[in-house]
Amino acid sequence: MSLAVVDATVSPSRHLALLSRAEVARLLDASRGDLRALFRQCSLAVLSTGSDIDDGRALLARYPDFDIRIVPQERGLQLELKNAPAQAFVDGRIIQGIREHLFAVLRDILYVSERVMDNPSFDLTTSAGTTDAVFHILRNAGVLRATTRPRLIICWGGHSISREEYDYSKLVGYEMGLRGLDIGTGCGPGAMKGPMKGATIGHAKQRIADGQYLGISEPGIIAAEAPNPIVNALVILPDIEKRLEAFVRMAHGIVVFPGGVGTAEEILYLLGILLHPENRHMPYPLVFTGPASARDYFAQIDDFVAATLGDEARERYRIVVDDPAEVARQMSEGVQRVAEFRRRRNDAYAFNWLLKIDEAFQRPFVPTHENMAGLDLHRDQPPHRLAAQLRRAFSGIVAGNVKADGIKAVEEHGPFEIRGDAGIMARLDALLGAFAASHRMKLPGSDYVPCYRIVR
Amino acid sequence: MSLAVVDATVSPSRHLALLSRAEVARLLDASRGDLRALFRQCSLAVLSTGSDIDDGRALLARYPDFDIRIVPQERGLQLELKNAPAQAFVDGRIIQGIREHLFAVLRDILYVSERVMDNPSFDLTTSAGTTDAVFHILRNAGVLRATTRPRLIICWGGHSISREEYDYSKLVGYEMGLRGLDIGTGCGPGAMKGPMKGATIGHAKQRIADGQYLGISEPGIIAAEAPNPIVNALVILPDIEKRLEAFVRMAHGIVVFPGGVGTAEEILYLLGILLHPENRHMPYPLVFTGPASARDYFAQIDDFVAATLGDEARERYRIVVDDPAEVARQMSEGVQRVAEFRRRRNDAYAFNWLLKIDEAFQRPFVPTHENMAGLDLHRDQPPHRLAAQLRRAFSGIVAGNVKADGIKAVEEHGPFEIRGDAGIMARLDALLGAFAASHRMKLPGSDYVPCYRIVR
Amino acid sequence: MSLAVVDATVSPSRHLALLSRAEVARLLDASRGDLRALFRQCSLAVLSTGSDIDDGRALLARYPDFDIRIVPQERGLQLELKNAPAQAFVDGRIIQGIREHLFAVLRDILYVSERVMDNPSFDLTTSAGTTDAVFHILRNAGVLRATTRPRLIICWGGHSISREEYDYSKLVGYEMGLRGLDIGTGCGPGAMKGPMKGATIGHAKQRIADGQYLGISEPGIIAAEAPNPIVNALVILPDIEKRLEAFVRMAHGIVVFPGGVGTAEEILYLLGILLHPENRHMPYPLVFTGPASARDYFAQIDDFVAATLGDEARERYRIVVDDPAEVARQMSEGVQRVAEFRRRRNDAYAFNWLLKIDEAFQRPFVPTHENMAGLDLHRDQPPHRLAAQLRRAFSGIVAGNVKADGIKAVEEHGPFEIRGDAGIMARLDALLGAFAASHRMKLPGSDYVPCYRIVR
Amino acid sequence: MSLAVVDATVSPSRHLALLSRAEVARLLDASRGDLRALFRQCSLAVLSTGSDIDDGRALLARYPDFDIRIVPQERGLQLELKNAPAQAFVDGRIIQGIREHLFAVLRDILYVSERVMDNPSFDLTTSAGTTDAVFHILRNAGVLRATTRPRLIICWGGHSISREEYDYSKLVGYEMGLRGLDIGTGCGPGAMKGPMKGATIGHAKQRIADGQYLGISEPGIIAAEAPNPIVNALVILPDIEKRLEAFVRMAHGIVVFPGGVGTAEEILYLLGILLHPENRHMPYPLVFTGPASARDYFAQIDDFVAATLGDEARERYRIVVDDPAEVARQMSEGVQRVAEFRRRRNDAYAFNWLLKIDEAFQRPFVPTHENMAGLDLHRDQPPHRLAAQLRRAFSGIVAGNVKADGIKAVEEHGPFEIRGDAGIMARLDALLGAFAASHRMKLPGSDYVPCYRIVR
Repeated sequence: MSLAVVDATVSPSRHLALLSRAEVARLLDASRGDLRALFRQCSLAVLSTGSDIDDGRALLARYPDFDIRIVPQERGLQLELKNAPAQAFVDGRIIQGIREHLFAVLRDILYVSERVMDNPSFDLTTSAGTTDAVFHILRNAGVLRATTRPRLIICWGGHSISREEYDYSKLVGYEMGLRGLDIGTGCGPGAMKGPMKGATIGHAKQRIADGQYLGISEPGIIAAEAPNPIVNALVILPDIEKRLEAFVRMAHGIVVFPGGVGTAEEILYLLGILLHPENRHMPYPLVFTGPASARDYFAQIDDFVAATLGDEARERYRIVVDDPAEVARQMSEGVQRVAEFRRRRNDAYAFNWLLKIDEAFQRPFVPTHENMAGLDLHRDQPPHRLAAQLRRAFSGIVAGNVKADGIKAVEEHGPFEIRGDAGIMARLDALLGAFAASHRMKLPGSDYVPCYRIVR
Repeated sequence: MSLAVVDATVSPSRHLALLSRAEVARLLDASRGDLRALFRQCSLAVLSTGSDIDDGRALLARYPDFDIRIVPQERGLQLELKNAPAQAFVDGRIIQGIREHLFAVLRDILYVSERVMDNPSFDLTTSAGTTDAVFHILRNAGVLRATTRPRLIICWGGHSISREEYDYSKLVGYEMGLRGLDIGTGCGPGAMKGPMKGATIGHAKQRIADGQYLGISEPGIIAAEAPNPIVNALVILPDIEKRLEAFVRMAHGIVVFPGGVGTAEEILYLLGILLHPENRHMPYPLVFTGPASARDYFAQIDDFVAATLGDEARERYRIVVDDPAEVARQMSEGVQRVAEFRRRRNDAYAFNWLLKIDEAFQRPFVPTHENMAGLDLHRDQPPHRLAAQLRRAFSGIVAGNVKADGIKAVEEHGPFEIRGDAGIMARLDALLGAFAASHRMKLPGSDYVPCYRIVR
Repeated sequence: MSLAVVDATVSPSRHLALLSRAEVARLLDASRGDLRALFRQCSLAVLSTGSDIDDGRALLARYPDFDIRIVPQERGLQLELKNAPAQAFVDGRIIQGIREHLFAVLRDILYVSERVMDNPSFDLTTSAGTTDAVFHILRNAGVLRATTRPRLIICWGGHSISREEYDYSKLVGYEMGLRGLDIGTGCGPGAMKGPMKGATIGHAKQRIADGQYLGISEPGIIAAEAPNPIVNALVILPDIEKRLEAFVRMAHGIVVFPGGVGTAEEILYLLGILLHPENRHMPYPLVFTGPASARDYFAQIDDFVAATLGDEARERYRIVVDDPAEVARQMSEGVQRVAEFRRRRNDAYAFNWLLKIDEAFQRPFVPTHENMAGLDLHRDQPPHRLAAQLRRAFSGIVAGNVKADGIKAVEEHGPFEIRGDAGIMARLDALLGAFAASHRMKLPGSDYVPCYRIVR
Repeated sequence: MSLAVVDATVSPSRHLALLSRAEVARLLDASRGDLRALFRQCSLAVLSTGSDIDDGRALLARYPDFDIRIVPQERGLQLELKNAPAQAFVDGRIIQGIREHLFAVLRDILYVSERVMDNPSFDLTTSAGTTDAVFHILRNAGVLRATTRPRLIICWGGHSISREEYDYSKLVGYEMGLRGLDIGTGCGPGAMKGPMKGATIGHAKQRIADGQYLGISEPGIIAAEAPNPIVNALVILPDIEKRLEAFVRMAHGIVVFPGGVGTAEEILYLLGILLHPENRHMPYPLVFTGPASARDYFAQIDDFVAATLGDEARERYRIVVDDPAEVARQMSEGVQRVAEFRRRRNDAYAFNWLLKIDEAFQRPFVPTHENMAGLDLHRDQPPHRLAAQLRRAFSGIVAGNVKADGIKAVEEHGPFEIRGDAGIMARLDALLGAFAASHRMKLPGSDYVPCYRIVR
């Protein structure tokens, strides 16, 4: 297949790009191949927004001749693109939103590599040091709005959802936009794009010109989930754990749309944090929602949470089916409680310092057979620890289903074995079975062969 | 049926509303019932945006207790609403766009009644005086953008179109928005709303914050076609002829989407003007477009134009089927030719003074049986005169189909009789028959009984 | 003397200038010589800002070849200048503030002649009709700020004052600017320019970007008192009475700096209005102020007011000597009382509708010998009527001192005779004598020959 | 003497102040006394703008009870002030410009101490590393304007100058403001304040709302030369050498007003850089200017330069006496040549990377008797090296005249001895004698006892 490509020179516009000579030199330095490769890969991802593939390697393979170079120049610098995806351009001119994304990528890659990773003042082996690094990356990106009252709603959910679920997510975004709420997502299509489009229309009707459409990504996912050009505040965190921490510390509320087992993992991640005793009294609006057809999905998750983490966990969220205005109302009221709480505690509106995130959630979980078999899925631990263990179980299943390393491991060693309390195992088995039955495990069309085995 | 209503006090925001004591007094003056009634009716229309009815009288009947009052106050004035449609509000607060529309209505009604109609400096019996009045109303409304390069595309088409046609109009608006074009319509749903929503997304991606979403209405139609709150530049002309003149003098290009016989009338109106010898060399981008399913509709119109007005008429438009980007490209290139032409001729970007509009198009046509029978539908006249006659024929049929006076006249006196050259009559018959066959004469579901009789 | 002149073409920038064909035609119409002459004269005045003469006829005589023409063009229109004063330009480019003033002149001259004077809806023979016209001219000029809290301080005083008094007026403006107050004056140099320059620095330090620097002028005075380019809101009222009414209805407070007998006239004008019983309870901050050297000037006025109008009149103002910060504090507190009053009474912040202005103050007073002799300067009338009579006396003396008609009348018929109560006459004589002694009657250097005779 | 003081809580406004928990902790950390002391001292300097003393220690002594604390809070943080100088407040509210300065101080002190000084990626022992650090501090402060065409004029000159010289500097600033030029200075009164005030009025007349008023300071000088609140871009460099480098790399042109021997030192500093062979072809507009009374001062300097550095040095500057408009015109034309040069060389408008600054100018010179005696003041070296030596001589004399360490050294060891070529020594003696004679060595009123001895 031959794809349309374009050569172009791109100047910065809103996002200034004043680089020092040293910074430019490092990006042009052939011996720093990793940095150049990272920059090239993320830039290509940004330029290929709207493409129909969600596989980073496939994307790079499609544009083997793509190149991007930095050219110092009197107004700062320019980017020279060769063989760039034509879809980023309209009649030969780059779409303004994508232009900004290119410079956001440049900004974050440089900042992380030059100022965070090599800087002894960030101790990334500690929980506090990790949080500090996340904060600095967000502040440097200019996405923290210190003086704005709380209004940022993070939307989670699958990137590959049905047309009905997508339209529903647009309606929820619209109703939130009408109420002056901003939207943040993980970029990409599906439940990440719908709410932003809806909010854009809602904001237009309310004449809200400063709406924030936040995209939080990381190098490993950006190619699969390229930011929509509506995103006007893009930040690239260095890895998936810091990205998740950015979500939960920036959010003033979270809406979860339907998704696959990955969405279930995210739910467990968040519940694990909210169940920590130090977070018990912190308001944190959380709604699971979808159209009528998604009722079962959330009912299954709700049952599973009830049976494993107990009623306290269920009190941290509401399930709203087929009522976009109600979702928006709950978020609107919720962020007011958040504002009141932060005021009283002198915590920043822009960054939830008070949220306690256990180191367990900051350290990556590598889903080997050994690690999966070693999960501690028993009731004799506080719910927030069990949630952390369960999240890892889901994380491993996601890897076994769709990630290169996980698939290979399962091919070689057979399915992951998961052990634990009989009650928990029965519930887990039921939930995963239900997901498989409703084709939420993999893309529709394929028969699902489980990558795990519940050992009761 | 009991409709949700709301009482509220509304302050002006962007659109200032500094009224003189005398202006307030006149609006409160019970003896000036016509002005108050007009204000009440148009305000109700604006507040009921998004409702499912397109009948002004029905709307008024639905909200019999609706009232609106002006209250002078320190920041100018406030509007006190009683029993207003709840849909204009979100959680008890009026939608900002609708708030602006209320004050736009107030502004235009006062200006027209106080400064135009009673003012001897406007001689509305002349063509130049009429154009002058239209200009002053638009200038007073602040919708003329003197310093902006040409970029306003007027979109015409039916307000009651299929989902497919609606989605198509959104895509065309999106592609135009990506190219920095603004959108003007007659307000209302369907082809009037789709392009604006699309352009909103396109503008967001291009970071265009000053996009104009122009709505041009008049008191007789606003209840049926309430402006969408996206409209950020609303103006109410006093009658349908001035509204049409506002469209064609503000447009830098026009896109026609599918519609009914009314849309055909608009096409004839515009072609009649463009065929005037004085307008021969004026660039005026004009595209008829729709999804694949609308191919026949435009083919029928194209055939009819060819057979009646000749090839010169066909050269004034292009038909583009199922290609939104191509439509946008043609408009984008077209407005550049318009800019070049106005620069060379020292004509304003904001208002097409050079366009010759025959008085025939400025005077209203009243479709009585006598007037319809007296139409001069013969070939022995210049095409632009024949177009004017044909437009009147269509106008009469629209009235006979759907307007109160027309329906009554047909009930009493039988169908209108239309006479003329056999060739023209045959083509007219065929076109109208095709419209009837494809259910474009009336709302689907009803059998169509023609209100006219072609007398060959 | 040969003065530097420049030819230039000037495009509108902020102040749009969308004119109708008819408006342009009228301005180009040779048969409408008065309108063209007015436009030429006011434009020349605006262009000669900063010149050292304060005589309109002399100014016109200096630039006999000056011409200005309107050229319609794609972005509205351009102005073509021939032989314009070079001081309006910096390195060949017109100063932006002056550019805006040119278009403000054009706007107001057209509006007044086309929309107000010939418009039967303004009955200029009535008090209400006059006020209505003033309001419409101000609204059309965009100088009324409906949503801004009261903060406009009108500054009065002489245009020909000492360096010390000028520096003092700058300090007062600076202190008012620091407190977020805006400045309005009658344009021109001296006490009209100093407070604006001071406020500009004060606003810069407070980062106030939307400060209003209002200039209110009229065709008879603009040549003598050309607006300083700092003025960012210029409006030209048609005559001196409407200009005075604009001052007192827009002001949220007034500061009077030292001046000549003209300033005394203004003080009487304002006191005459404030003493009207209907205005008794209206807060209206009024401070007379100057450096220490001006102490006597205000003491004399204060004595005169006490002796003629009584203590109630003295309660309407404060005299502050040599304390700029105190002046600013009093104005700052005063406008808060004004805001409170307007809120309670539902009167507009932007225009003081409630202020009662007697028709006597709206009708021009023509200072003939007969009228001067007929002044009713007796105590057996309410103070506000006596104030009106006294104002006329001062007005006549100003005319006899410096205005062409007045000087001629005195030359022909001898000094004006002024009659009245012995006590009043004695006070008047003393005050005028003191003015003469301190060289405030005419420009320094000339011996003053009184143009009046007090008949005791 | 008892000074008026105020307690207040100050919130950030434009300059956001989102600090991490770690940053706040460090500023509150009692064990980090140096950082707290530095923050307190610079904050007090900023708050005491406009005071009549130019001695940092005296200032601190005046407000012994002054304290400033950081309080985390929902919108970022607040500053709590105790016993702050009352002059920073207007009716109890802090002046907005000063508020911004406080947060600028906080921002730069933190950035320098946390991100620059302890960061191994800046090698401050090298010339390139030093330049890199200067760039990063300026970029972090947001004072580099990447997309603005060159228009920043740095103004140098004495902070203690005559009223006539001060008024002249205002006029030069005014003329530059009229031409759209921005002003940067070292903060403080005199020649540092005049041009800014003038430019503020010039910008107001030209409706330039984004004018930059740049202040570049350093902790050692800020107390003596507190920034005027007009400064809207304040940056605190860590030491005097980096401050000077910031001046010459940000400047698009430099204007030197009269001053004392310190100004002569600055002139030598700049000429020493411009004479470097690598800078030979770089346009760098440089004008020495003052009122007629300053003619001799510049003639003496000109003679001295001619005699020591030769005619090439004289070609790098122009002397303009008593002609503010001519100064502004030369700068206006000069920055166009700068723009052209940077475009051709792809160097940034915002930062002059191409300017070669010898390490000799980056390293501080400590004026001990030994160092002064060791100066290499002979002709057998390139002019740029001789300029560097001469600058050090002047620097030492400044220290011997007014700086604590220098005065003490001279008291203990007698005057500095300066040796070199007889011709140079004669010229130096003459120049310094002329300075002494015209009271430019010390504040007027004291007899000048030379701190140096020329050894021929």
